[in-house]
Amino acid sequence: SRHIALDVSERDAQTSHRTVTIPGLINVTGYVPNASNVIKGPAELKETTRLCLESGFTFSQIMPRSASGPTITDSHSLKAALSTAKDSSYTDFSLTVAGTSNNAEMIGSTSDQVSALFLPFHELKNKVSTVAELLKTWPIEKQVIAEAKTADLASVLLLASLQNRSIHITGVSNKEDLALIMTVKEKDPSVTCDVCIHSLFVTQEDYPEGVFLPTEEDQQFFWDNLDSIDAFSIGVLPTMLAHVTGNKVDIGSGIKDALPLLLSAVEDGRLTIDDIVLRLHDNPIKIFNLPEQKAVVEIDLDYSFNNRKRWSPYTKGGLNGGIERVLVNDETVVLSGDLIAIQPTGISVVKAQGSGPVSANIEAPLG
Amino acid sequence: SRHIALDVSERDAQTSHRTVTIPGLINVTGYVPNASNVIKGPAELKETTRLCLESGFTFSQIMPRSASGPTITDSHSLKAALSTAKDSSYTDFSLTVAGTSNNAEMIGSTSDQVSALFLPFHELKNKVSTVAELLKTWPIEKQVIAEAKTADLASVLLLASLQNRSIHITGVSNKEDLALIMTVKEKDPSVTCDVCIHSLFVTQEDYPEGVFLPTEEDQQFFWDNLDSIDAFSIGVLPTMLAHVTGNKVDIGSGIKDALPLLLSAVEDGRLTIDDIVLRLHDNPIKIFNLPEQKAVVEIDLDYSFNNRKRWSPYTKGGLNGGIERVLVNDETVVLSGDLIAIQPTGISVVKAQGSGPVSANIEAPLG
Ligand SMILES: [Zn+2]
Ligand SMILES: [Zn+2]
Ligand SMILES: [Zn+2]
Ligand SMILES: [Zn+2]
Ligand SMILES: [Zn+2]
Ligand SMILES: [Zn+2]
Ligand SMILES: [Zn+2]
Ligand SMILES: [Zn+2]
Repeated sequence: SRHIALDVSERDAQTSHRTVTIPGLINVTGYVPNASNVIKGPAELKETTRLCLESGFTFSQIMPRSASGPTITDSHSLKAALSTAKDSSYTDFSLTVAGTSNNAEMIGSTSDQVSALFLPFHELKNKVSTVAELLKTWPIEKQVIAEAKTADLASVLLLASLQNRSIHITGVSNKEDLALIMTVKEKDPSVTCDVCIHSLFVTQEDYPEGVFLPTEEDQQFFWDNLDSIDAFSIGVLPTMLAHVTGNKVDIGSGIKDALPLLLSAVEDGRLTIDDIVLRLHDNPIKIFNLPEQKAVVEIDLDYSFNNRKRWSPYTKGGLNGGIERVLVNDETVVLSGDLIAIQPTGISVVKAQGSGPVSANIEAPLG
Repeated sequence: SRHIALDVSERDAQTSHRTVTIPGLINVTGYVPNASNVIKGPAELKETTRLCLESGFTFSQIMPRSASGPTITDSHSLKAALSTAKDSSYTDFSLTVAGTSNNAEMIGSTSDQVSALFLPFHELKNKVSTVAELLKTWPIEKQVIAEAKTADLASVLLLASLQNRSIHITGVSNKEDLALIMTVKEKDPSVTCDVCIHSLFVTQEDYPEGVFLPTEEDQQFFWDNLDSIDAFSIGVLPTMLAHVTGNKVDIGSGIKDALPLLLSAVEDGRLTIDDIVLRLHDNPIKIFNLPEQKAVVEIDLDYSFNNRKRWSPYTKGGLNGGIERVLVNDETVVLSGDLIAIQPTGISVVKAQGSGPVSANIEAPLG
């Protein structure tokens, strides 16, 4: 669903900077490791969603993951996360629940309060029957997000196909995996995938420690097959890379430069604004059944992007793109890249399948 | 195709032993590690096929495997194996070719001289794109035999399904793998499998070193789901078990007691003679497109089986069943369990798809 003409227009007469207005973007794999921790979580969620909003992301789907393992795994931890998020998020959001080797019986009760079931890599690895069990429990109409590689990727794709259910593969990191997904997509368009934005711009050659990064050859394959990549994500990759390279691990790594990176590719003619909106707005809404927001983002394409505050995987500089303004429900919430006085009243919004949005708690929507 | 009435009849008036006549059995995964070694191979093949024939197996499909890796991998090694087998096999046989990480381009030229492509466990492990490449090269109408577990099993099943091709999983060793195969079979009956005969009778509890054996629970699941097991095999399991337990590793381990083990299950009411013939004759012929032979085996059900000559995984004794006579092309080739004077003139027979048998070499058929 396209709401806005994406024509780039000369706007700022004084500086001749080009601007473009796009719909509010969606952070499909928000990384908030303390999401279910009522002590540490609120500040972290505030910081993350502030960074998101200032970067053009007006909705986050939050992954139930942390460096030490899955966070939201049952109705108790989901309740804790909803409590954590109360008055702590600057944007509306959805939570997701993690499947593990021993919670197949517990996830079902969470399904109408989360947007998807997440199958983390470590829980999937060589555990075909665990995954089969989890998929059997999970309502067929709700999405499944799997972080899977090589044989585990093939295995989860087979299990999804045996159940005739859709599946989304997140953080595809190499050529072979994308090629397999492409082959399956030919037969079954309900298989979708995302790649991390940073993995379109940095490689294992840049960071030999980053074995989870694509090689240059993998990366070229991603660019050559962009049509098969349904969504772009930020996810945990920038944080993991900061960790393995001994750089400072900040909350919200990779959020601020995500859009400037993509806009630099627009500038280089490798991507269009439409390509970005499709993969950071239209497709995420469809794939994860997320709510349509009344949110627009005005971008200054010629603003020189500067990210000195936190370490970023992309260190070559020269990125352009600034958030001039973000409007949610016709109110300006970000101006010249900074959050302007609003309260963190974002709520969990999960759409019931085949109906309108349903709030997981009782607060009024952000606006 | 059933040729013979399988009624058990009182035959031997003197001893009141019951006998039954069944079609010549097929050894679906013959283990001849030196099959392509023109020096060591002939004696080994003679010994193996003698044991087979004396045990009721009148045809062997030979796996291209040895303890040190794949043996037949291209047209050179196939030629060597055909040369090795010349005047060295007491039964007709078919060879198979192994897929490896670097021979996708070489297997195609062997396809009309072998009965199947074999994908060994070590070559499959986490190599989805290698397997995809191998399957792409291999003629769609020729069978593929995969030795795969857990995620690699799922992955090869997915790849086969994407190509709409049949696949046979050999040596299924645990409950989860059989359950996955059963789920896939429901949708796609061209997926077939075998279990090793010995793994129906010995478990990890008997041999803690034999991690490739089923647990008691796995084994019970096999017996409970016999309908989903298309074939029985002997394979490399008895040899591997002799190796890990420090017992003497003989050529042809497990062949002599294979049928007596199954007949003991018939005696216990857990299996019928029909079940055996289906899985050691009818189904193998269909699954691997093997030639129909004119071969019958007369079994003395009450003969006390004795296997003192070589180590066997099954040490509890008390097995019954003796091969009274084997007739191939109306000639008696085994009498009272012993090969009687015949020459090892068995040949490679591979049926062209949709036509009659084609000899891979020019000798006359055995008989
Ligand atoms: Zn400007
Ligand atoms: Zn709990
Ligand atoms: Zn990223
Ligand atoms: Zn929209
Ligand atoms: Zn007798
Ligand atoms: Zn060669
Ligand atoms: Zn066996
Ligand atoms: Zn027959």
